[in-house]
Amino acid sequence: MQTLDVALGARSYPLYIGEGLLGLDLLRQHVRASQVLVVTNETIAPLYLQRVLDGLDGLQCDTLVLPDGEQHKNLATLETIFDTLMAKRHSRTTTLVALGGGVVGDMVGFAAACYQRGVDFIQVPTTLLAQVDSSVGGKTAVNHPRGKNMIGAFHQPKAVIIDTQVLDTLPARELSAGLAEVIKYGLIRDAAFYQWLLENMHGLMARDAALLAEAILVSCRNKAEVVAEDETEQGNRALLNLGHTFGHAIETWTGYSQWLHGEAVGAGMMMAARLSAELGWLPQAAVIELDQLLRQADLPVAPPPGMAPQDFASLMALDKKVHDGTLRLVLLKAIGQAVVTADFDQAALKRLLETMCH
Amino acid sequence: MQTLDVALGARSYPLYIGEGLLGLDLLRQHVRASQVLVVTNETIAPLYLQRVLDGLDGLQCDTLVLPDGEQHKNLATLETIFDTLMAKRHSRTTTLVALGGGVVGDMVGFAAACYQRGVDFIQVPTTLLAQVDSSVGGKTAVNHPRGKNMIGAFHQPKAVIIDTQVLDTLPARELSAGLAEVIKYGLIRDAAFYQWLLENMHGLMARDAALLAEAILVSCRNKAEVVAEDETEQGNRALLNLGHTFGHAIETWTGYSQWLHGEAVGAGMMMAARLSAELGWLPQAAVIELDQLLRQADLPVAPPPGMAPQDFASLMALDKKVHDGTLRLVLLKAIGQAVVTADFDQAALKRLLETMCH
Repeated sequence: MQTLDVALGARSYPLYIGEGLLGLDLLRQHVRASQVLVVTNETIAPLYLQRVLDGLDGLQCDTLVLPDGEQHKNLATLETIFDTLMAKRHSRTTTLVALGGGVVGDMVGFAAACYQRGVDFIQVPTTLLAQVDSSVGGKTAVNHPRGKNMIGAFHQPKAVIIDTQVLDTLPARELSAGLAEVIKYGLIRDAAFYQWLLENMHGLMARDAALLAEAILVSCRNKAEVVAEDETEQGNRALLNLGHTFGHAIETWTGYSQWLHGEAVGAGMMMAARLSAELGWLPQAAVIELDQLLRQADLPVAPPPGMAPQDFASLMALDKKVHDGTLRLVLLKAIGQAVVTADFDQAALKRLLETMCH
Repeated sequence: MQTLDVALGARSYPLYIGEGLLGLDLLRQHVRASQVLVVTNETIAPLYLQRVLDGLDGLQCDTLVLPDGEQHKNLATLETIFDTLMAKRHSRTTTLVALGGGVVGDMVGFAAACYQRGVDFIQVPTTLLAQVDSSVGGKTAVNHPRGKNMIGAFHQPKAVIIDTQVLDTLPARELSAGLAEVIKYGLIRDAAFYQWLLENMHGLMARDAALLAEAILVSCRNKAEVVAEDETEQGNRALLNLGHTFGHAIETWTGYSQWLHGEAVGAGMMMAARLSAELGWLPQAAVIELDQLLRQADLPVAPPPGMAPQDFASLMALDKKVHDGTLRLVLLKAIGQAVVTADFDQAALKRLLETMCH
């Protein structure tokens, strides 16, 4: 087992990474009092819920099984979490456990942020994407019909327990979606890791356990460093959104039901890289290399058919990085070096959208 | 105009108290960028909305008028605020303005806490209760059908603008409800102010402007001091909940639609005082004096007819001050000296409920 710390003063917490961690009593160690609500979804419940409950024996341990899918990440589903907490009389000392992917983690974290103005929660991510990204850093949210993650809070978990064994049951499409966020860390701040990914993507896609564990560890270390420097995204944390402004527009346009988040981020990173090349910041060879890497990871490299430049323009105007009317994008100055900037040629963005929308 | 500061480091903010403040440009001074959403209710809109909008000329200034009443303080109404922000494309630099009583202030504050994970908001309280209590200190929330203020956040406003002139249009029942919270400050931490209230309650009920201004100033000073010491209620801030555990039970039992919050707090403070006397902490004479003061302020001194001891027991078990199964109450050691304690005779509480429920 490897342990990393997210260093946030009084809000610091450990990430545990290793095989078979669900069978240990790590979860129990971070439960504050006698009440626990484990929230999961209908896909994960039959696979891992009992294993988690076994580790919480003797506590008042309630469960809630949500429907699976990004289209359920909304206020209506959030309300069912509050209903359960109230019906089972959970007090301010309760602990929520998020057992699932990013959707479960984001919603349970937000419920924990709001219930009685803030209770403890623990992340037990079961997808690669949640393990390397969404479970770490305290961003919680639900979607609004007009925009992704528009309603949320910064609320840090008490611990993140990453059992790499659960990836055995992860569908191939979900593995690819997680690899999109893994690639992201290489692109924005870790050129050596990007090089490692170029060399090892075949092994990762073949689910080599040692390679996956290494990719998770390096990704989480990158994420923890960024979050420790800028918890509430006043500055460099925004770099983690490489590809996300394009990606969120894709997810919103497709109604949160067709593309996985990581797939949209894959296409979005390609768009950001191509715009960066268009602006003369990134060599064309790097764009081609990224295109090949994303294809190796079975990720899309272009927006969905039918989505028009105007759809992007309209949806991106609602992005959280819009400040007082000005769109800012995360772009690449080089592989391993991202910037957040509003200082780019609007005509170049227009050309990019016209070229890539088909 | 008087100015007080709520001293919370980077989150410090001013309270402005005076007559005719809505006609000044105080609001404009605290708007960060070019977008504002003013949220009010159907009672206040025809009275004061235009005056507020006049002070925001030249900005993108959107408005939302909510239905009036505690029964609308829920997630469904909250969602209409998010819908408006999204439809009008408000970005993370927007400012929300809460123009109304405690219901509007609590909901708008919570919406500001969650929209894009946190935007600015300004409190413009139009009831005495909101001016002396709910607009100050950053507690925001909506109700759950099973419990009051169960879903919320700590999110401090950028300023609180208290125009005492708006009390001219306040209904008598609302004035009384506000006086309940004013009396509370005397009871929990300011014996001299309590003495002043005993001497001046007739003048306050007659709406003597100078007396009301003084009562608001002293109340806000007490509130600001408590909040500065304990922003997120780890300790003494809980003293502000004198009468509220009983009061919230009354409000929940009556479906948030019959008793005003301040009325429920009035009856609740009477219950807390009588329990304190029962425990031998408060002399009987103080209980009789408080009973007279509350009656002078036209406030109830007993629970609603039909509410049984079991109703209290059941609803109080869900109070936010319940820690791991143990009910804690705010009780009085003396006039001007409150404590939060679980160390009281349960039989005394049972006797009190049986005596007071009728």
